[in-house]
Amino acid sequence: MAAQSGQSGSRVERDLLGEVTLPPGVLWGVHTRRALDNFPISGTTIGSFAELVQGLVVVKQAAARANRALGYLDPTRANAIDAACQRIGHDPAYNAQFVVDAMQGGAGTSTNMNANEVIANVALELLGEKPGAYGVLHPNDHVNMAQSTNDVYPTALRIGLLLAVDPLLVALEGLHAALDEKAGAFDEILKVGRTQLRDAVPMTLGQEFGAFRTAVAGEIRSIKAHAAAFEQVNLGGTAIGTGLNTDPRYAPMVMAELRSLTGRPMSSSPDLIEATSDVGAFVLFSGALKRLALKLSKMSSDLRLLSSGPRTGLGEIVLPAVQAGSSIMPGKVNPVIPEAVNQVAYLVAGHDLTITMCADGGQLQLNPFEPMIGYCLFTSIKTLRAAIETLTTRCISGVCADRARCQSLFDLNIGIITVLVPVLGYDICSTVAKRALAEDRKVTDLIVEERLLSPEQLATLLQPAALTRPNIGCVPV
Amino acid sequence: MAAQSGQSGSRVERDLLGEVTLPPGVLWGVHTRRALDNFPISGTTIGSFAELVQGLVVVKQAAARANRALGYLDPTRANAIDAACQRIGHDPAYNAQFVVDAMQGGAGTSTNMNANEVIANVALELLGEKPGAYGVLHPNDHVNMAQSTNDVYPTALRIGLLLAVDPLLVALEGLHAALDEKAGAFDEILKVGRTQLRDAVPMTLGQEFGAFRTAVAGEIRSIKAHAAAFEQVNLGGTAIGTGLNTDPRYAPMVMAELRSLTGRPMSSSPDLIEATSDVGAFVLFSGALKRLALKLSKMSSDLRLLSSGPRTGLGEIVLPAVQAGSSIMPGKVNPVIPEAVNQVAYLVAGHDLTITMCADGGQLQLNPFEPMIGYCLFTSIKTLRAAIETLTTRCISGVCADRARCQSLFDLNIGIITVLVPVLGYDICSTVAKRALAEDRKVTDLIVEERLLSPEQLATLLQPAALTRPNIGCVPV
Amino acid sequence: MAAQSGQSGSRVERDLLGEVTLPPGVLWGVHTRRALDNFPISGTTIGSFAELVQGLVVVKQAAARANRALGYLDPTRANAIDAACQRIGHDPAYNAQFVVDAMQGGAGTSTNMNANEVIANVALELLGEKPGAYGVLHPNDHVNMAQSTNDVYPTALRIGLLLAVDPLLVALEGLHAALDEKAGAFDEILKVGRTQLRDAVPMTLGQEFGAFRTAVAGEIRSIKAHAAAFEQVNLGGTAIGTGLNTDPRYAPMVMAELRSLTGRPMSSSPDLIEATSDVGAFVLFSGALKRLALKLSKMSSDLRLLSSGPRTGLGEIVLPAVQAGSSIMPGKVNPVIPEAVNQVAYLVAGHDLTITMCADGGQLQLNPFEPMIGYCLFTSIKTLRAAIETLTTRCISGVCADRARCQSLFDLNIGIITVLVPVLGYDICSTVAKRALAEDRKVTDLIVEERLLSPEQLATLLQPAALTRPNIGCVPV
Amino acid sequence: MAAQSGQSGSRVERDLLGEVTLPPGVLWGVHTRRALDNFPISGTTIGSFAELVQGLVVVKQAAARANRALGYLDPTRANAIDAACQRIGHDPAYNAQFVVDAMQGGAGTSTNMNANEVIANVALELLGEKPGAYGVLHPNDHVNMAQSTNDVYPTALRIGLLLAVDPLLVALEGLHAALDEKAGAFDEILKVGRTQLRDAVPMTLGQEFGAFRTAVAGEIRSIKAHAAAFEQVNLGGTAIGTGLNTDPRYAPMVMAELRSLTGRPMSSSPDLIEATSDVGAFVLFSGALKRLALKLSKMSSDLRLLSSGPRTGLGEIVLPAVQAGSSIMPGKVNPVIPEAVNQVAYLVAGHDLTITMCADGGQLQLNPFEPMIGYCLFTSIKTLRAAIETLTTRCISGVCADRARCQSLFDLNIGIITVLVPVLGYDICSTVAKRALAEDRKVTDLIVEERLLSPEQLATLLQPAALTRPNIGCVPV
Repeated sequence: MAAQSGQSGSRVERDLLGEVTLPPGVLWGVHTRRALDNFPISGTTIGSFAELVQGLVVVKQAAARANRALGYLDPTRANAIDAACQRIGHDPAYNAQFVVDAMQGGAGTSTNMNANEVIANVALELLGEKPGAYGVLHPNDHVNMAQSTNDVYPTALRIGLLLAVDPLLVALEGLHAALDEKAGAFDEILKVGRTQLRDAVPMTLGQEFGAFRTAVAGEIRSIKAHAAAFEQVNLGGTAIGTGLNTDPRYAPMVMAELRSLTGRPMSSSPDLIEATSDVGAFVLFSGALKRLALKLSKMSSDLRLLSSGPRTGLGEIVLPAVQAGSSIMPGKVNPVIPEAVNQVAYLVAGHDLTITMCADGGQLQLNPFEPMIGYCLFTSIKTLRAAIETLTTRCISGVCADRARCQSLFDLNIGIITVLVPVLGYDICSTVAKRALAEDRKVTDLIVEERLLSPEQLATLLQPAALTRPNIGCVPV
Repeated sequence: MAAQSGQSGSRVERDLLGEVTLPPGVLWGVHTRRALDNFPISGTTIGSFAELVQGLVVVKQAAARANRALGYLDPTRANAIDAACQRIGHDPAYNAQFVVDAMQGGAGTSTNMNANEVIANVALELLGEKPGAYGVLHPNDHVNMAQSTNDVYPTALRIGLLLAVDPLLVALEGLHAALDEKAGAFDEILKVGRTQLRDAVPMTLGQEFGAFRTAVAGEIRSIKAHAAAFEQVNLGGTAIGTGLNTDPRYAPMVMAELRSLTGRPMSSSPDLIEATSDVGAFVLFSGALKRLALKLSKMSSDLRLLSSGPRTGLGEIVLPAVQAGSSIMPGKVNPVIPEAVNQVAYLVAGHDLTITMCADGGQLQLNPFEPMIGYCLFTSIKTLRAAIETLTTRCISGVCADRARCQSLFDLNIGIITVLVPVLGYDICSTVAKRALAEDRKVTDLIVEERLLSPEQLATLLQPAALTRPNIGCVPV
Repeated sequence: MAAQSGQSGSRVERDLLGEVTLPPGVLWGVHTRRALDNFPISGTTIGSFAELVQGLVVVKQAAARANRALGYLDPTRANAIDAACQRIGHDPAYNAQFVVDAMQGGAGTSTNMNANEVIANVALELLGEKPGAYGVLHPNDHVNMAQSTNDVYPTALRIGLLLAVDPLLVALEGLHAALDEKAGAFDEILKVGRTQLRDAVPMTLGQEFGAFRTAVAGEIRSIKAHAAAFEQVNLGGTAIGTGLNTDPRYAPMVMAELRSLTGRPMSSSPDLIEATSDVGAFVLFSGALKRLALKLSKMSSDLRLLSSGPRTGLGEIVLPAVQAGSSIMPGKVNPVIPEAVNQVAYLVAGHDLTITMCADGGQLQLNPFEPMIGYCLFTSIKTLRAAIETLTTRCISGVCADRARCQSLFDLNIGIITVLVPVLGYDICSTVAKRALAEDRKVTDLIVEERLLSPEQLATLLQPAALTRPNIGCVPV
Repeated sequence: MAAQSGQSGSRVERDLLGEVTLPPGVLWGVHTRRALDNFPISGTTIGSFAELVQGLVVVKQAAARANRALGYLDPTRANAIDAACQRIGHDPAYNAQFVVDAMQGGAGTSTNMNANEVIANVALELLGEKPGAYGVLHPNDHVNMAQSTNDVYPTALRIGLLLAVDPLLVALEGLHAALDEKAGAFDEILKVGRTQLRDAVPMTLGQEFGAFRTAVAGEIRSIKAHAAAFEQVNLGGTAIGTGLNTDPRYAPMVMAELRSLTGRPMSSSPDLIEATSDVGAFVLFSGALKRLALKLSKMSSDLRLLSSGPRTGLGEIVLPAVQAGSSIMPGKVNPVIPEAVNQVAYLVAGHDLTITMCADGGQLQLNPFEPMIGYCLFTSIKTLRAAIETLTTRCISGVCADRARCQSLFDLNIGIITVLVPVLGYDICSTVAKRALAEDRKVTDLIVEERLLSPEQLATLLQPAALTRPNIGCVPV
């Protein structure tokens, strides 16, 4: 590869396929140019995943430092690469130089080369050279020293995902707090619990929102636990995990640099050959994202059910109106936020399938489909995070209870009879329930009318405190 | 391969791996024995898919007839094979001889050999010989003559699926009839239509069930159309579709025999090489089964929603009680039949994914994963059919409308205001709707109270006939 | 809703939630603004799907014309809307005004309102009015007249998909032509056919590429057939399919306008209530896209296998080098184009699952998840088309055969023995095959050495013409 | 419910729907009878999942003991139930009494009632009573005391899965041992490593099998870790998790009994309301099973690739012949065992999707689709276990290396040039590689011919010890 500056700022670079003229001002080079021609697929660039870019420069930076320490890379070049990585990783403006399509063949080679070229040219700039002066500092020989796409890309992907998970967790914490607040606010509101969409036994609306909160807490733990698997990486394995063309001291040293640069307990996979082709951590993490998505979807479906109406549905809660609901029906307000969340959840489930098929396509010493795995995971995280934030701020935090409705439905519920089973027995209760339904009457009225219990006994048995927790032996009859 | 009768009815057969002793009375042989050892996977035998067995014997019968006509198979052997196939295909007792596990490697070779062996031994019986007398009539040389697993198995699978689809269609016709009956019976019942679980504009319960009926009618057409693709088969292509080791007259002749035996317009794939590895018809048919499943699932979810309650849900319809609903809550009756249908639908969707991954695994001249495709398709058809039948007979045909509930919810519905938009304008209607909701009043009362319309005008505009069809310009104000 | 122009070109609009200030120059309004706030999900706007925008304006144009003809919309407004639609549909610059996120709740209401607002403001411009002068021409009352999101959006989606399918078909025709050319060019090259990755019987490389071509031809037919289902639409059904607030003459008239505007045989769904909530055509079409994806994936996997090597794989073909293959291994050229195609195929399979789950979420009179269905289908079509184009131009059209390699592997193949089975019998052939493998010799040498056939007989039996088609009875021994 | 003995051993039971006559000898009752009528879906009974039956009886036993200790259940009945559970759990013959279809609506009520009835009747037998003498000991009042299907079924499912995982882990340990043995045996065999199906850099066959072993070790850890989540259960929550109709001391006590009976650290979910509708542990565990399946699938695909040939493929290893491969091609031996494993993997992936959709269907206080989740998980575990066992015993343990083939391919490989890059530089190496390919020569010959290195230097650089591990700085040039 060689470069020469062309007219009007454009420059020419060469690879085994021949010469290409690059537009003025670009920091990428011939290999990136080839990739642009080969993969005009999705229109989504790798630069649109800022954390992936950060993952790449951290890897390059760590490698340059290790190579310098071991004496393979002279301090001038090493320092220039180091400084270039620092600059790129901290200035989002550089993301625009990461132009390769996220959907690409080649197991990430184009992504790696895009990074090598941009870093080399920024380093050259720092050294007072022109872009393309690869005789001074070379994308492959120096920036990619002791590396292969096959250890760089999977490592950068993992670090990028670790970075992307952080704001997702922040979003989840926000949702958790909003749900916790509602669980507290709705603590005293008695309502009908429902199983299989049928009236069941009593609970409080606070318990219902508390269950959402518990679910979110569980997801926070799960996402954290599964993301931690990304702290084990295969950098140092080079092409197939044997570490060919590295110094034996390189792998542990580059890992120490990664720890220092990321502040995380990065470590080397114990079997680098296995790790080179392994995508298991992505598969499990995708499963964890899918579980999170399903929990959000279930919550959203519940919010839509509980707020259904306003007149002919359940109507126990009211979602905040965030837009006019209908272009034809005046006054209609729709649960548009939870609906968006459901859909994002289904996208994430779809991505999980895409990842599954990518994972199945690994062959021998490599899985060439990691770029699509990366696309799916970053997109899933990004849309989930956005969905969670909009759910929190534009829906959950504005949810109101319709206390009167909760109470009136509670009073109608035949399922309250279950509370009396320990006192009256299953058979009598069953008969009363049937009669209440057939005659469209309240269970409690029938109980008193049939003198099965006195009004006072009934009141004692049905005192709210007893209805929503273990109750036998606590309440004297 | 050779056989000798052992003591107490057992017999010994041989293959390239050595000798095996077969239990007394079995009609299968050494190759089947190997497969039993190799694939103790699911416990589901190919014989449990009766239509697959029928597909296999039809193929073998057609081949024997074509080989006889062309003079490659002598009449004695050909006739014995023909008669054996006839017998096996019409006596379900023989299914028990098709013992190979439905989940098997080898692209169906074990299934084909199981068939070859059983047919050979039944034919030998008909010739007065003992099982295993393959010197007289041989599973490979005679039953499998001019065939390869790679054309036999895909063809038998397609014919088997065509046979299995028939009762599925009968079940769908039954469901269609039951829905049609309900659509008629509920024709006059006005109710609230709902979009996004929010109260919308009027419709009749008959229209709602009519929509279910329309959906089922569409599925009947779709299943028929997609199954028809199975009438094109690759029999005659032998190992890779080149037709090696067949007479050029064989392929058209065996196709004519297939048409005669099945009574269907079976034809030869125009490119037998492509057809040998192609599983596209299975993929599309699985997609059609999935669509059917989704329609059934949507209908079942709607039935559960519409019947939710009995007191605190929608409660517009009542599903027949088919079992006690709860072990703890007296009087609870659950929508267990639709719930079963939902679950079967999700199984079918899962099978569609399994088929997708199997389809992706085809390599070069063959797809070795057709046995799993067959397992999934037969199981999906079988469970769908059962689900449809139980849905029809134990749920739909006993559905009752709660007319009073439909009416009372209808009267409460604010969405009725939409009908007045063309008369009063969107803005006024919007204001009225808001006030109705805020003050918990009926829209119609407010309209009259505010003298926006006279009670007579209102009655005319809201006459039921106008509410559930195109209404503008029909109803004078 | 009302609007007033603010300072420096910005303007203010109002809805039930209050006032918003819109940035200068935008043609969308308050409802679009709400959607931007509510759905900051994917960053992909509906305007990035140009065909969806075209579908929307065609629907609005047809409605305006029908409303004008029926006398509900005065000619001035109707003509302005008509002209605005014409302009927007033919000038891609307007796509930038369709800013709502493709992932949105609300069943497409925001998309519909974005369209209503942009069309209204362009129409106002044509009438010499300022944007937001809705007193003159109103997004809801006039642009959306006789419509509901629930019939507009599904109709526009279908028309948009019909438009998007056209270039996909063109891309497929290009692939078909490229494969056809290769099938012809490789017509005489004998090679080993392989089943289950094991050496099987002879074929030509032309037959192998011919099978790819046949597969593509089948997909062209399938995509066309399944897309045709989109020609049936529910426009005219309004909110839930009853056609409420339309004139009975409206539905047939708007359909005639759709036919005229699209030049396609658009027709009205026979049961508009069913059609309003129905997403079956999307599900089946997604299944067809998935099948196409799987065929492309299988072809790509085969290309990778057949070109594997260069020294230690199959190496029968050589893919064109389109970029340097490795950052560490000099001279390595990877099959990056087919790898990209595989990955796109898996994305499409993932989208099929997303669509499946969206389809399952339909409730009662509507499926609120059509926006995600639209996102997935448009994205699948777009990436498939790009993948097909790059596969055609950067891979297939440059594929070369390695004739010497094909011949040398052909000569080594033991599977050639199958050709002799009809002459020598299965058992003798089996013995020869075993010996050839054990002694690492050629089958033909052993046949001659053991005097099973003379060299002349062998040459006759193995003449190329006989090896790749039905051969028995054609070649005298 | 009441029972009376009929003639000839049959007996009659009653529920709210009326009387049924039960066949002689059955231990189940009227509720099971209803379920048999309602769910003739799959033909797979819950009794075919022995571990589920064990899970059910353990739950019932624990409840009986807790109820006895708390004084709610008299010792006679409690002891009879306890003994009955003991008997059923230890005698597989009772599995035949668990006849309800595994695919059922009702959230497991039918499964729970089948268990209640069988246990009651076995207990009655132990008390010297006739089956159906529920006046003495009642399925609901006594066996189901303080329980609901909604806490019994999810708890039993989890315990059943814990039991089913044990033999799966044993199977995995067996596979691990077999791979470890091969990794050792193949330790010294140099071969070509391959990335993207292209020749890459050197490794040993032992490293390749070692990577399989590492993968399996990782799956053992993962399965164990994810199964551990099943040790947290919701027993004690009754209908919706509030613990209604239980004594506050019951939940902790029944948990202690579960620990004692299972020998596992069973604990109570901290939020029983959330836990009642939560299926997250199933979703994640299914994801873990899918990852295991994908690892097995990748290994199986690799085994098929590495053994491809015998003459025209890679042919580096030979799989044991376990059956004749082809009905038409003599001597062909196919990789049938790995093919079966691939297919099972795809079934498991399909089941994961089914579980995903079931999980999404949870509503409010319950997920009614757990029976299908159970079906899928038990079936996945069962088929995976069988696939692993057959893979271990009938494939891996008999794999042989073709050392000569490995060496000859190794000698041909151009990728060896990579080793020389640190010495000769990327550009020179690239030129040599190109020439080697173009002239069909060995890289090493060219190096010597061009005097780039002396034969001695080359020998030193290419000594095997240096080729498959970090090599720079270790080998003096």
